[in-house]
Amino acid sequence: MTTEGTAPATAPGPLTQDRRERILQAVDAAFDEQIRFTQELVRHPSVRTREAGAQDLMYEAMQSRGLEMDRWELDPEELATHHGAGVVEVSYEGVDTVVGTYSPDVERGRSLILNGHIDVVPEGPEEQWERSPWDAAIKDGWLYGRGAGDMKAGLAANLFALDALRAAGLKPAGRIHVESVPEEECTGNGTLSALMRGYTADAVLIPEPEEDMLVRANVGVIWFRLRVAGNPTHPREMKSGFNAIDALYSVVARLRELEERWNAQKAEHRYFEDLDHPINLNLGKINGGDWGSSVPAWCEADLRIALYPGVSADEAWAEITALLAGITQDAAGNAIQAAATRTGFYAEGYVIEEGSEAEEALRRAHRAAFDGRELQSFTTPGYLDGRIFVQYAGIPALTYGPVSERIHGYDERVELESVRRITKSIALFIAEWCGVEDA
Amino acid sequence: MTTEGTAPATAPGPLTQDRRERILQAVDAAFDEQIRFTQELVRHPSVRTREAGAQDLMYEAMQSRGLEMDRWELDPEELATHHGAGVVEVSYEGVDTVVGTYSPDVERGRSLILNGHIDVVPEGPEEQWERSPWDAAIKDGWLYGRGAGDMKAGLAANLFALDALRAAGLKPAGRIHVESVPEEECTGNGTLSALMRGYTADAVLIPEPEEDMLVRANVGVIWFRLRVAGNPTHPREMKSGFNAIDALYSVVARLRELEERWNAQKAEHRYFEDLDHPINLNLGKINGGDWGSSVPAWCEADLRIALYPGVSADEAWAEITALLAGITQDAAGNAIQAAATRTGFYAEGYVIEEGSEAEEALRRAHRAAFDGRELQSFTTPGYLDGRIFVQYAGIPALTYGPVSERIHGYDERVELESVRRITKSIALFIAEWCGVEDA
Repeated sequence: MTTEGTAPATAPGPLTQDRRERILQAVDAAFDEQIRFTQELVRHPSVRTREAGAQDLMYEAMQSRGLEMDRWELDPEELATHHGAGVVEVSYEGVDTVVGTYSPDVERGRSLILNGHIDVVPEGPEEQWERSPWDAAIKDGWLYGRGAGDMKAGLAANLFALDALRAAGLKPAGRIHVESVPEEECTGNGTLSALMRGYTADAVLIPEPEEDMLVRANVGVIWFRLRVAGNPTHPREMKSGFNAIDALYSVVARLRELEERWNAQKAEHRYFEDLDHPINLNLGKINGGDWGSSVPAWCEADLRIALYPGVSADEAWAEITALLAGITQDAAGNAIQAAATRTGFYAEGYVIEEGSEAEEALRRAHRAAFDGRELQSFTTPGYLDGRIFVQYAGIPALTYGPVSERIHGYDERVELESVRRITKSIALFIAEWCGVEDA
Repeated sequence: MTTEGTAPATAPGPLTQDRRERILQAVDAAFDEQIRFTQELVRHPSVRTREAGAQDLMYEAMQSRGLEMDRWELDPEELATHHGAGVVEVSYEGVDTVVGTYSPDVERGRSLILNGHIDVVPEGPEEQWERSPWDAAIKDGWLYGRGAGDMKAGLAANLFALDALRAAGLKPAGRIHVESVPEEECTGNGTLSALMRGYTADAVLIPEPEEDMLVRANVGVIWFRLRVAGNPTHPREMKSGFNAIDALYSVVARLRELEERWNAQKAEHRYFEDLDHPINLNLGKINGGDWGSSVPAWCEADLRIALYPGVSADEAWAEITALLAGITQDAAGNAIQAAATRTGFYAEGYVIEEGSEAEEALRRAHRAAFDGRELQSFTTPGYLDGRIFVQYAGIPALTYGPVSERIHGYDERVELESVRRITKSIALFIAEWCGVEDA
């Protein structure tokens, strides 16, 4: 399905105080149900390649709201034709993007994409969690679980914000696509597939867990696998041999020097000057050796590094591979081979220019939802799918969402009162941006 | 089956020059066939728990020589009752020890065990080998392949040394058990199971690859798995989190301090004073983290450490676990949990006292097989099953075998002329030790 952003026929009227109040009350009225639906989403462990059950839930939720449904499996070959796609190391069989479209009878308002990702990162050793990562417990105003904050609360907020307009007796005057995408945590290919399918709009809102703030700028991310190989021996003569685990560690130390060089350049990058450590190199996974009594012959690690907006993925990757090509010895002087291959993200960072119409609309919505508090913006050193809209379609992407703690960690949680206000803010933003008419 | 070492009824006569010559010639005459059989053994990839095919070959080879056969599956529960057993983390289904027994009509000579292990360590990444680790190629007088030296050449040498006596028209006057055991590379449980089954003798010979020398002393070995856990986060806030891979590395650094303390004590340990680095801590295998973009929450490593003869496994283990219990923070000050569990070897080192009758007999055999060269002895910082005979049955264990290179490494190889001489030496030793009579 292909949709085209079109200019509104006639701009809808401003949001009246009465309509605003009705929307805010509607969010409150349905909030228990919204929490229940968010819990149900958390109870579907939608880790990578196993998103289907949670996508079924999203599909049904959108369909029951009367949206026009579209669902397709990601196509690795088609994605590979796009420069911003991530490298795919898994099967995409059953890995779908779901989009539900609301179309007004006459398209008079601006169009909008409400985007969110259904995939969650692995829960890690479950015994380290206070409770199961999948039981979606609520305690002292927080909802716990893997993905509670990142970002099932946001996915639910998108839907319930739309509900609030209807419950308030209003209907948006612009076209709205609700996107539930996989692969945000590893490649960005879910959102990219929706763009390649033709889904565009005048603005995008993505309620990632962002501390009730708007993301002004964020980093790009490259994933790669480093493999170091050498010559193994019996430990009885290990001094003469090469230890691939030690060697990998010495190669990572060289990459950390690169990381520090990039961090030292932060003053040259607008919005990153004040961050403590914007460029993080994460050694996320390691695997090496075959046998306790053999000096390990090989070791590999999955790494993630960030890059500033304005630095292309090609430039960053060239710097990484040049550094590795220059490493021919480990710290002990043994000849080593170090090689890196891309394994996921190949993404560039972006900046949302200040003062766009979309941002101004969100600013008004936020003020109304948060008792007059001004919308703050900030820079985040993490990956965001927003880059796909900004870089490849020129669409302003507002990444803005609730307060959370320990995303990607144990006992991840999202604050429910923040989710309530964010939902109100999204609902008001939809009304402001698309315009509303009486139903 | 239970056998008991008994004093010879009448000592057999000394080995005459004529008989010696006939034995040496018999080894030469069958040496091509011996190489062929060794190649066949190498072509059976008898890595841990997959020894059955190679054991079938050994069983048939012993049976066809008229030995009385015994074969049994290792029993983890029975083994666990013995203090010197290694911890078992695999299934022992189909993991057998094979013993073939030669019994003279009248037992007039001393008894002997010819021991060898059928298991080999993993081959590692096959592309790093010049040829397949399992094709048993011969080039420039060397036989290549995983296990060629460690120790299929030795297993074959035991059998063909016995053959040489028969071909020379002689029969041993003492009882001989030929043992082909699994689990030498990880627990020692194969040889231990044979001892627990009742196989003992007046001496043991084990043709491990020892550079044509006799092992005077060797280390004990403990295997353990170190696991470090902590609190993972999103890389965007990684400075506040804990990285289990880094933390494991910092714990290993503490263990390396222990390793250096133990090495600094080498002057106190007879036969170890002159070794460069007798105590080796090997980080053989590592595995950690779940996701490139999550700070890793856990990391574990398989380690192997050596201990001097005279140091009990309990003492060494207590020192290791006390050190780990004292580690509560990583280098960055994050609270960590470090725990170790035993995963295999729990073995003590041993010393063969100089001047035993068995050693003197081997000395004479070696001189005759090696053109008058004196037998050298040395200390090896690797594990040997000999400890089981020495420590738990008081049997002198002669570990003595051919020249090899790169055991546990790529392109492992054994020198065939060395194998020929070692086979001659073993054959002469059998004749010397057990005595021979005309067949």
